[in-house]
Amino acid sequence: MPQFNPLIARLSPPPIPSVLAWAKAYDGSRGPLIDLSQAVPGYPPHPDMLKWLGEAASSPAYTGYGAIEGEDELRDAYADHVSKVYGAKITADNIHVTSGCNQAFISVAMTLAGSGDTILMTNPFYFNQETTLSMLGVKIELVPCDPANGFLPDVEAIAQALRPGVKALALVSPNNPTGAVYPPALLQKIFDLCRQNGTWLILDETYRDFLPAGAAPHGLFSNVRWQENLVCLYSFSKSFCIPGHRLGAVTASPAVVEQIAKVMDNLQICAPRSAQAALAKALPALDDWRAENREEITRRADALRQVMARAPGWKLQAIGAYFAYIRHPYADIGSDLVAEKLAKIAGIVCLPGDYFGEGQEGYLRFAFANADAATILKLEERLNGFSLPGI
Amino acid sequence: MPQFNPLIARLSPPPIPSVLAWAKAYDGSRGPLIDLSQAVPGYPPHPDMLKWLGEAASSPAYTGYGAIEGEDELRDAYADHVSKVYGAKITADNIHVTSGCNQAFISVAMTLAGSGDTILMTNPFYFNQETTLSMLGVKIELVPCDPANGFLPDVEAIAQALRPGVKALALVSPNNPTGAVYPPALLQKIFDLCRQNGTWLILDETYRDFLPAGAAPHGLFSNVRWQENLVCLYSFSKSFCIPGHRLGAVTASPAVVEQIAKVMDNLQICAPRSAQAALAKALPALDDWRAENREEITRRADALRQVMARAPGWKLQAIGAYFAYIRHPYADIGSDLVAEKLAKIAGIVCLPGDYFGEGQEGYLRFAFANADAATILKLEERLNGFSLPGI
Repeated sequence: MPQFNPLIARLSPPPIPSVLAWAKAYDGSRGPLIDLSQAVPGYPPHPDMLKWLGEAASSPAYTGYGAIEGEDELRDAYADHVSKVYGAKITADNIHVTSGCNQAFISVAMTLAGSGDTILMTNPFYFNQETTLSMLGVKIELVPCDPANGFLPDVEAIAQALRPGVKALALVSPNNPTGAVYPPALLQKIFDLCRQNGTWLILDETYRDFLPAGAAPHGLFSNVRWQENLVCLYSFSKSFCIPGHRLGAVTASPAVVEQIAKVMDNLQICAPRSAQAALAKALPALDDWRAENREEITRRADALRQVMARAPGWKLQAIGAYFAYIRHPYADIGSDLVAEKLAKIAGIVCLPGDYFGEGQEGYLRFAFANADAATILKLEERLNGFSLPGI
Repeated sequence: MPQFNPLIARLSPPPIPSVLAWAKAYDGSRGPLIDLSQAVPGYPPHPDMLKWLGEAASSPAYTGYGAIEGEDELRDAYADHVSKVYGAKITADNIHVTSGCNQAFISVAMTLAGSGDTILMTNPFYFNQETTLSMLGVKIELVPCDPANGFLPDVEAIAQALRPGVKALALVSPNNPTGAVYPPALLQKIFDLCRQNGTWLILDETYRDFLPAGAAPHGLFSNVRWQENLVCLYSFSKSFCIPGHRLGAVTASPAVVEQIAKVMDNLQICAPRSAQAALAKALPALDDWRAENREEITRRADALRQVMARAPGWKLQAIGAYFAYIRHPYADIGSDLVAEKLAKIAGIVCLPGDYFGEGQEGYLRFAFANADAATILKLEERLNGFSLPGI
């Protein structure tokens, strides 16, 4: 009987479904489930978003095949948006639309590296980026992020890891899982190091829209030759509350976009079209709504800070645009068991630190932005009333 | 300056956009463009299909993340459908929904083989399957299909090519590009050979619904242990006229489905959800409409046969469920130049045989099912009035 590709067979099953299975085993005795696992804002999409999605999906205009790189109107709208956010000059030919940000990552990873090549990631990392590289046979080297320094990546360690032949460094800011927001100056230093080493910098900014309003997330696009080694990734899922419609985007040089199109043609020809048409309308139109959500997320972060200050033994190690990274009180117990019991006994669903890298068994990831402030405040009683049975 | 993955850099640009560029250069002097390039039925989706797509897309029920393997209702509906078509017992856990059939292929290819492994394909082949394997670093060996035998694959050649370690054989029936329909007995022989060699058989049946009504396309699902080495692929794009919504499916053992889910989680988490919900309704409801289309496609094939009998120098080498493979009259001229001139001068857009494999420069692929019979009949005058300038 034929076998599977060992690179796939040895991957663990996708983690989210296992966690949702723990949630199903909760008996409701502590009140309604509080789901802080998969990042999904706990408010619905804007009614206009749903209206535009429906209009485009029922239109014969979007039933045929579309351009591989994405619908012109979405590439234009997103290029305008990125230009405004960063005070940069980004045009449609810098944009490749993908079916979500995981697809943005894999299409970029395949474009830049093949089996046997090396890509650097941080530890902890976003697990789907790690499994993506593993299944492609790409070698992974990890750069540590110091908990004592808010989980920012260590520049010295990056400098040491950047040897000739290292194809890319993959960063996520605001970070998943820790929430850490990488300061512009740090990103510039890392960009310079990558550039000097002939290494691509892949920067995933899926959670960018949940940063407090203010300055640009970074100034990398103002480097005159940014197109030579910078590739930025984004997801429309979180910001517009439409992960089920699967849309993300890459911002890079036209030369990179041209290579990604070859990969995308094989991956799925083009991203689903009608949702792209709806998003092209929503991007400029729902700016105010997104600004309100940004404020709402800040209130949720404040509520979590308040809770954690009153939960002895639990430590808020880092908090950022969407996620908090929390040290649990059980020094000798793995995060997977703690997370399982929290879900089954206390009705708090979160992800174990173990899923995100080496030495992360002391942490849990709370996607706090999923729940409103009132719900988050209920965590206080549940955490303080929680104990691991038999321990 | 960092480089690209050479496996991607060396791929040709996706072929369809180049062909559409030729079409744009046509001046309209011979009448409206006849587009027989990318397979897209030239009739609109059923109005109910559009209605259901719109309803689901505007519903908050499908905005969140969905199950990786696909929506339960679509997996159920498609399992029922496959069971009926083949007189077999297929259940939802045999089904993995994907974002189109290219994605079905790449997710299966990655599940079964890695860089350096070997997969057999036919010559000619469907070009996206070839580029997919090439970009993954999978070695490709080609099994010839004899034009004199209607482009059916040579069983002896397959038997010889199946050595230990050959991971899979990929077939397409009804075939793209030739249209050849592989008889059930031939498929059974090839399945047995694969089985004896411990090799997966990947069978892409994207054009199955355009076969004349009658017996099942094959009896492979009635092999008691079919799940041990058979994986079948399908696309909803052609049959429901909704390629822009990107949906396809894999039928395989639950063990294969479980492995594909790991790949899909990294590729894009799940296929777009609202279109899945709409299709779950359409699959049973639009049976009669699809049967009418099947008859319409038969009329189109008849029209093309009539045209080709009256076009001296042009030879209908094979014709099947959706495509015809046509020998052009210019023995010394490559099919890419003939196709380019046909588009630019005669307003007939088709794909060059060169795109589909070695030694195919004498052929053109006509996706005849794109055009209605009246339009196809107009090809007679255009082909007979065509000559290559300067030759």
